[in-house]
Amino acid sequence: MKNCLIAQSGGPTAVINSSVIGVVIENKNLCHFDNVYGGLNGIEGILENKLINFSEMTDEEINTFRYTPSSGLGSCRYKMKNFNENEAEYKRFFEILNKYDIDTFFYVGGNDSMDTVSKLSEYAKLHSIDKRILGIPKTIDNDLMFTDHTPGYGSAAKFIATTVLETYLDSSVYMNNGVFILETMGRDTGWLAASAALAKINGKPVPDFIYLPEKSFSIINFLKDVRRKMQEQNKVYIVASEGLKNEEGTFLAQLNSESKFDNFGHAQLGGVCDYLKNLIVNAGITKRVKTLELGVMQRCAMHIASQVDLDEAFAAGKAALEYAIQGKTGYMVGIRRLQNTSYKTENFLIPANEVCNKIKYFPLEWISEKGNNINDAAIEYMNPLINESPTLNYENGLPKYTQIK
Amino acid sequence: MKNCLIAQSGGPTAVINSSVIGVVIENKNLCHFDNVYGGLNGIEGILENKLINFSEMTDEEINTFRYTPSSGLGSCRYKMKNFNENEAEYKRFFEILNKYDIDTFFYVGGNDSMDTVSKLSEYAKLHSIDKRILGIPKTIDNDLMFTDHTPGYGSAAKFIATTVLETYLDSSVYMNNGVFILETMGRDTGWLAASAALAKINGKPVPDFIYLPEKSFSIINFLKDVRRKMQEQNKVYIVASEGLKNEEGTFLAQLNSESKFDNFGHAQLGGVCDYLKNLIVNAGITKRVKTLELGVMQRCAMHIASQVDLDEAFAAGKAALEYAIQGKTGYMVGIRRLQNTSYKTENFLIPANEVCNKIKYFPLEWISEKGNNINDAAIEYMNPLINESPTLNYENGLPKYTQIK
Repeated sequence: MKNCLIAQSGGPTAVINSSVIGVVIENKNLCHFDNVYGGLNGIEGILENKLINFSEMTDEEINTFRYTPSSGLGSCRYKMKNFNENEAEYKRFFEILNKYDIDTFFYVGGNDSMDTVSKLSEYAKLHSIDKRILGIPKTIDNDLMFTDHTPGYGSAAKFIATTVLETYLDSSVYMNNGVFILETMGRDTGWLAASAALAKINGKPVPDFIYLPEKSFSIINFLKDVRRKMQEQNKVYIVASEGLKNEEGTFLAQLNSESKFDNFGHAQLGGVCDYLKNLIVNAGITKRVKTLELGVMQRCAMHIASQVDLDEAFAAGKAALEYAIQGKTGYMVGIRRLQNTSYKTENFLIPANEVCNKIKYFPLEWISEKGNNINDAAIEYMNPLINESPTLNYENGLPKYTQIK
Repeated sequence: MKNCLIAQSGGPTAVINSSVIGVVIENKNLCHFDNVYGGLNGIEGILENKLINFSEMTDEEINTFRYTPSSGLGSCRYKMKNFNENEAEYKRFFEILNKYDIDTFFYVGGNDSMDTVSKLSEYAKLHSIDKRILGIPKTIDNDLMFTDHTPGYGSAAKFIATTVLETYLDSSVYMNNGVFILETMGRDTGWLAASAALAKINGKPVPDFIYLPEKSFSIINFLKDVRRKMQEQNKVYIVASEGLKNEEGTFLAQLNSESKFDNFGHAQLGGVCDYLKNLIVNAGITKRVKTLELGVMQRCAMHIASQVDLDEAFAAGKAALEYAIQGKTGYMVGIRRLQNTSYKTENFLIPANEVCNKIKYFPLEWISEKGNNINDAAIEYMNPLINESPTLNYENGLPKYTQIK
């Protein structure tokens, strides 16, 4: 009897379940593991013995799960300590693997999850534990190093760009429209905010200005931009990342309201659009300022997911299984872009300890000199990632999703 | 030479352009009017002579316009005074109609637009002006009297219910999830908030509680509900209408922050979810409360529109043209539901002066006794309205929309 275990960690995406099903279906094809277990609530749940068995699911259940957004196995924000600080946890983890005859553990997640992959695989090597630990990338933030991009990003980008199109049309209907400010996620990086530039109407990009955390935010330049554009066209469409910082390096959202921190010490932001609104109103440019925070919709909008993204998430799971069979451990599956026109990618391996606790920033050379927009190189990079739409099953007019009990 | 004119007014919907194209295409079929003009920015723009000609558009442009959300002709919130107060405006309006040989004016809008239809047609009758003035219903709020429902509502309901499904899945991934509060539009009525009940996973409705403006909001009962549900299942999903009022009849949003009024004297709300969040946190139930205001996305999300709604919007435009040919004036086109299973409707006429300045509330008998949810009769009413999805044209991975210059 030889089994494998897969679990999810960190913030959800629309396509994270696709990676899980990539492992499940490829295992069916190759008949390698006897059972594919799912760990509930990531490492946190596994340590509490919370496992389900995918081998007991019907094909229909598996297909519905594949097209269900968000972390279907549940998630956690549990940070493992180093094994010299809390070895009991590591022992407990491998005991559970032994109990279920689990040979390989797949962890679908971002930076912090790759930290777990790195620590677990290192511990196993040190103690000659014959188990494989592999990471599958996932984050709408697109901020993992070495991989061309991350599954989850394309669908978030597609949702954002679609919403930019639609809210731009909504905010342009009156004779006096004023300013519209859309706030995207992106604590450290501007990948999500940048995707707004994909929205074009009659060939022209919709956002007048896009502000990314990679460039420090200048209030003076911002107000100059907005004032000029209002004079020119009597309406302004602005996209701002939640992670914008001023020239002193302070989050704008922090200037606005009390800020909180999650278990990893990351600032929990939000409210940048209200801060910018106040700047505009107080500067006397206009009182007509509408704001919209996209919030969690960015990471779960399966109904407008990218099929390219879904396929790549699935392929990353499939590849992870194949790498496990080859005996690889301590790696994250990466995506390499082979060609941009007639877009094509392949998977490869990246040592998990090189990925974890690092951040891939939006390239400065893709940001306009004034720091208020992005350029064509960025659009060329992003465009293939949002292509094609999935054919979802609908029930009573709504997409059919499922939830594991 | 005999022409007609169509314009849009009030807040946008996803399907309002479909009604315009209903007039345009039916006129092509019947070859009745020589030209179909579009008035830009409603009455306000027409009085400034801002007209375009649909007869000059290609079939492809017309089709793209049909599937473009929001008021493609622009909108206004211009309230016409009574004609004994400002007759010059009425004279000006009919002068413009004469100038373009316009025989019929179609106005697509809600309560306030039907007020305009009523006033203009009354003035024409009084002065023996041989013109037809007809209203085509449009509002995501679904609050027009006598019509079974309004075009625009079904698509908004579908967007809300889909987002409820997806954000519920997103907000249920951790071991400790806390409370999620979704705020919908609905200043006076609960039709939009109620649509959240359409969201079901594995057969069970997703929202634990739905609060509508039709029932006064009790803080004590609310906190009891939330506390109990948190104890039962360690997570609570709440849907709240922006128009919730306390037992004294004050908007909760007004208690929360300074409130503004639009040109019609309607309170501009928003921020109910933050008010409810504070109640929950201050009552010590949990600190984990996430909120989401759907904002304008509710009225422009063509990418998840209801095909039934699109078809009905189109049919209302088509019917309006046919009624105009019959010489009808001073009416709004209504929708009558003929059967619910194998859902079927027909159009009929309602005197515009009976519709305007009235509000159709969500029936109290469809609200649960405790006032914290809705019942099956409401679901039966709403369900057919969100059915079927349009096949949109995509370009570079995004829906193809257009904008009239």
